[in-house]
Amino acid sequence: MIQHADDAITRDGKILILAYDHGLEHGPVDFEPNPETADPERVFELATHDAVTALAVQKGVAEAYYPYYETDVSLLLKLNGTSNLWMGEPDSAVNCSVEYAADLGADAIGFTLYGGSNHEIEMAEEFRDAQEDARDHDMGVVMWSYPRGQGLKNDTSSDTIAYAARQGLELGADVAKVKYPGSADAMAEAVRMAGPTKVVMSGGSKTDDRSFLETVESAIDAGAKGLAVGRNVFQRENPTQLLDALEGVIFEELSAAEALRQAGGDPDAAAE
Amino acid sequence: MIQHADDAITRDGKILILAYDHGLEHGPVDFEPNPETADPERVFELATHDAVTALAVQKGVAEAYYPYYETDVSLLLKLNGTSNLWMGEPDSAVNCSVEYAADLGADAIGFTLYGGSNHEIEMAEEFRDAQEDARDHDMGVVMWSYPRGQGLKNDTSSDTIAYAARQGLELGADVAKVKYPGSADAMAEAVRMAGPTKVVMSGGSKTDDRSFLETVESAIDAGAKGLAVGRNVFQRENPTQLLDALEGVIFEELSAAEALRQAGGDPDAAAE
Amino acid sequence: MIQHADDAITRDGKILILAYDHGLEHGPVDFEPNPETADPERVFELATHDAVTALAVQKGVAEAYYPYYETDVSLLLKLNGTSNLWMGEPDSAVNCSVEYAADLGADAIGFTLYGGSNHEIEMAEEFRDAQEDARDHDMGVVMWSYPRGQGLKNDTSSDTIAYAARQGLELGADVAKVKYPGSADAMAEAVRMAGPTKVVMSGGSKTDDRSFLETVESAIDAGAKGLAVGRNVFQRENPTQLLDALEGVIFEELSAAEALRQAGGDPDAAAE
Amino acid sequence: MIQHADDAITRDGKILILAYDHGLEHGPVDFEPNPETADPERVFELATHDAVTALAVQKGVAEAYYPYYETDVSLLLKLNGTSNLWMGEPDSAVNCSVEYAADLGADAIGFTLYGGSNHEIEMAEEFRDAQEDARDHDMGVVMWSYPRGQGLKNDTSSDTIAYAARQGLELGADVAKVKYPGSADAMAEAVRMAGPTKVVMSGGSKTDDRSFLETVESAIDAGAKGLAVGRNVFQRENPTQLLDALEGVIFEELSAAEALRQAGGDPDAAAE
Amino acid sequence: MIQHADDAITRDGKILILAYDHGLEHGPVDFEPNPETADPERVFELATHDAVTALAVQKGVAEAYYPYYETDVSLLLKLNGTSNLWMGEPDSAVNCSVEYAADLGADAIGFTLYGGSNHEIEMAEEFRDAQEDARDHDMGVVMWSYPRGQGLKNDTSSDTIAYAARQGLELGADVAKVKYPGSADAMAEAVRMAGPTKVVMSGGSKTDDRSFLETVESAIDAGAKGLAVGRNVFQRENPTQLLDALEGVIFEELSAAEALRQAGGDPDAAAE
Repeated sequence: MIQHADDAITRDGKILILAYDHGLEHGPVDFEPNPETADPERVFELATHDAVTALAVQKGVAEAYYPYYETDVSLLLKLNGTSNLWMGEPDSAVNCSVEYAADLGADAIGFTLYGGSNHEIEMAEEFRDAQEDARDHDMGVVMWSYPRGQGLKNDTSSDTIAYAARQGLELGADVAKVKYPGSADAMAEAVRMAGPTKVVMSGGSKTDDRSFLETVESAIDAGAKGLAVGRNVFQRENPTQLLDALEGVIFEELSAAEALRQAGGDPDAAAE
Repeated sequence: MIQHADDAITRDGKILILAYDHGLEHGPVDFEPNPETADPERVFELATHDAVTALAVQKGVAEAYYPYYETDVSLLLKLNGTSNLWMGEPDSAVNCSVEYAADLGADAIGFTLYGGSNHEIEMAEEFRDAQEDARDHDMGVVMWSYPRGQGLKNDTSSDTIAYAARQGLELGADVAKVKYPGSADAMAEAVRMAGPTKVVMSGGSKTDDRSFLETVESAIDAGAKGLAVGRNVFQRENPTQLLDALEGVIFEELSAAEALRQAGGDPDAAAE
Repeated sequence: MIQHADDAITRDGKILILAYDHGLEHGPVDFEPNPETADPERVFELATHDAVTALAVQKGVAEAYYPYYETDVSLLLKLNGTSNLWMGEPDSAVNCSVEYAADLGADAIGFTLYGGSNHEIEMAEEFRDAQEDARDHDMGVVMWSYPRGQGLKNDTSSDTIAYAARQGLELGADVAKVKYPGSADAMAEAVRMAGPTKVVMSGGSKTDDRSFLETVESAIDAGAKGLAVGRNVFQRENPTQLLDALEGVIFEELSAAEALRQAGGDPDAAAE
Repeated sequence: MIQHADDAITRDGKILILAYDHGLEHGPVDFEPNPETADPERVFELATHDAVTALAVQKGVAEAYYPYYETDVSLLLKLNGTSNLWMGEPDSAVNCSVEYAADLGADAIGFTLYGGSNHEIEMAEEFRDAQEDARDHDMGVVMWSYPRGQGLKNDTSSDTIAYAARQGLELGADVAKVKYPGSADAMAEAVRMAGPTKVVMSGGSKTDDRSFLETVESAIDAGAKGLAVGRNVFQRENPTQLLDALEGVIFEELSAAEALRQAGGDPDAAAE
Repeated sequence: MIQHADDAITRDGKILILAYDHGLEHGPVDFEPNPETADPERVFELATHDAVTALAVQKGVAEAYYPYYETDVSLLLKLNGTSNLWMGEPDSAVNCSVEYAADLGADAIGFTLYGGSNHEIEMAEEFRDAQEDARDHDMGVVMWSYPRGQGLKNDTSSDTIAYAARQGLELGADVAKVKYPGSADAMAEAVRMAGPTKVVMSGGSKTDDRSFLETVESAIDAGAKGLAVGRNVFQRENPTQLLDALEGVIFEELSAAEALRQAGGDPDAAAE
């Protein structure tokens, strides 16, 4: 954690990462609810929204589209990732070098660590190289800290998420992306463990507007600095409205209901 | 995917790769239908056909023959590949460095990724190095994206091929070579998933002229940018005629029947 | 073992390492007895105590806090370490390069070796690189010499700890941190085996003031040069008082009772 | 395959490699029939025979003796090799770097590939590095192409040897050393598959003069460019006579009988 | 084997290596018969004896003591070695780089190869790097050639030791240290197989003066160039007397009895 290393992907110390590596991690199935989201251009356009402080993509997508968006979008290059065609103990290929990410104009790097996996040690050592190289290039470092693998039964328990957040601090991440541990108290504990490393919650699979925003509100109240969101934005019919609402919750610290109202949504609507 | 990185192996944005690495991948058995095709010179001669935009060979064959063809043939150096004497979980040796390929005059590199294999992660990391080195040498990057291995029952299902095409985009290939997924709709889906990465269908084992060309026509109609073909050309008695017909289907967007007629073939002949 | 290589982390040849890598090795559970100790700043403040000759932390904690303490604290950067989410044969990821540690201002490096583990050979080779790089940067080398793994039933037997101390000497550590082998005689044997490599005992889990200090006194009497302590300091209600007492035992060679009395503690109190 | 890369180890395009790495591969047992052949000097003397175009030895033997023979003998440094004390899936240690071989004055490198072994991929990648480094030093490349390992029942079948020869071409060897596939037709097929890569037959275990020479004659007639021979020369009582006869068969294309007669042997003698 | 590469560790072509890496390989138990031998200084003092041509120690011991002995002792830095806390298939960690050994003033390097182990190939490749680096620094190369592991029942049979000695020659060692194969004839065979590589016998566990010296005499008569000895010297009450006697047997080629008499020992004493 180096002070200000993540300035390029934060706004007033808050973060909203639009994550779009699902084509690699999950495959085309994640684009089915909203087929045109298979087109990266749609998501780059969304990333120009003021609420979005960084767009997380893999190397190939950055190569093809970022040249057209480099003035309007901050690039968080996700260095590792793997298809789910492969079904072994959790692991992730390093698909992009830090130097290449820097050449592409990345502002920060993203890196997954599967704590508890049989590949944890190898992944931690790959993270070391990436983190130190990122420091050389003055790029921020975001860890997707996802305990997973042999012996881990419930990977969103309060203890596990707190540990995951702490790994972010101990290993030198500026930002730790963790799953929501189920309650504001548990999120507060994770935030406390991460110390100066900023904690952002991971959006997860799509839920309805109101309950999603309330979870985000609860995380922000608990001290999280923001959100990394993918499906909950791009699988929506009106993703801009949700980004408007997220801007309210994260940067203006509005309640979920108020933010949704200001964004033109219906806070009382039932789940989609 | 870098715009124009693959110019040297395309013609009007279309691609016809003549692939000739069967001697390594399958062994001499693939030359039996047409024994003289064991002689690389025969295939280099075919590669001078206007329809062929690149010839894909392994390092040793390029070393021995390409010096005589470098003005007439675009070289796509296939970097990895393995004999089928070895029968483990799908994997492939990297037989040529990018720097050496550049010294040989290669215009592009070819690289196999077996998504779903226990070696997927290692192969993806080898691909990373090859891709980045190829960028340094301004060479195009073609991925043989072939899901295969533990847990993959049907490797030509629509979902699998669409995922394979998407891996090409996400990991930074200019061209993704995939198997034909059985229908034009499925191919269109793969093309859509690949975005700006050009999809070419893999020729597969030899079939009769008409049905082969109709499959190619269907792939082109679905948005594929071309074909990578080996046995369906060099195992034929009259490979030039088929190349003439392929030129019609791929570059002039003729129907299979019309292209075959113009090439002097008999569109109504039964399978050989 | 290079004479004076460890000067920056010793005082009159004695050592008191405050170890604070528990957030990585054990997770948040170690902060529960004294929740505010999750905040590294609390521990950096403790490390400014005159008795503390070095503070051992992982890279991320050093990055975030050491810039504010570099004049008052000697930094012992612990290079390797792993979460206990992972439950395989003992091993440890190298989370920080020596060069990066030097850039952070580290005075010495710390490195765990699990003698007897199936990963002993790999860890010893990683230690080799770290030790030689540390010599290049004039940094001291501290080995956490912890036999552990397949076939090792009792890892604090006299023979095992003596062997562990000897490994420190043979492999080139300036300081070997070993567990207390149960008796002063056994500790003396370990000290004898380590020759010029300084032996420090590892504090272990928290016990009451008096018995903890008596163990330290016994180790010092046996020739140990000091102590590496974590939980027995930071899990205490009054850690400063214990550091005062440790200063007496280690640097002034007072008895445990006398040192505790001078520090204002009650030598006759029952265990907490 | 680079034209003329192997000039230093051929004579009029033909090759006779005297192989002497048995001390490593098989151990002292191979010297028992003729105990003084344990002394490398005896074999270096034989290698000065005009018929011998290269002597294949491991690094240590080259270091000790080649300085005295560098004007009279062409050195083919065998880079990899392993004792048969080890009994796992076929593999081979790389005992000498190409740079070191060049420093020793080697004219060419030798490298074993066990196609079909579980280590084929690793060996092929080691071969890649060796081959490319050899090109940098203008040294010829000889592949010992020996399919062996899991799943390979008969490693001298016609198909297997043809495949082995083809691997030599595809991977960039100037010369492929293969076992005799049992008939002239099968050898001709292997030669055809290797294209411009020169095929030499491997001498194998010792047989009588006449039948050995007839096998060589058959191989030469089938298009092989020569022979790599060890035990069939150095285990003989009169190795010079056999080298004289081999010169006739390989370079003058005499029949086995005629060559043996000219060399002073008895073409009608029964097997030893 | 490079002529004169080992001059710094020989005297008139003969060798007496005092080996002292037992603290790493066997642990403190080897110092029990003579507890003060745990102190490396005692053994460095012994190494100043005229009979000793080199002292073999691990990196850490060399770092701590060699600066005080560099004018009186030739340093043979043992590069690899492992504790016996680890109980897997024989293997050895490389604990010191050649460059670092050179910086420490080493005259030669020592390296163990466990022929027949599942790690033989990896060890041979590590030996390659060490041997070539040692050549760059004009240091001699001593191989501890110890067949051991899966499938090796009797590792001191004549055939095994002869093979071990030959591996020394083939792989480029100046000196091969082998176990005594039980008879002078078997030792002579090992010497013959090693050619110009000097064979030294390994001292093994402690026996009485007379029978130990007779074994050494027998080895020298058989052509061995000397001895590597540890426990048979430092576990003795009067190690200097034994070194005096060894000087007689090895350098003056006296009989064991005569050498022992001249050294002031009692050739007729029963075993200790």
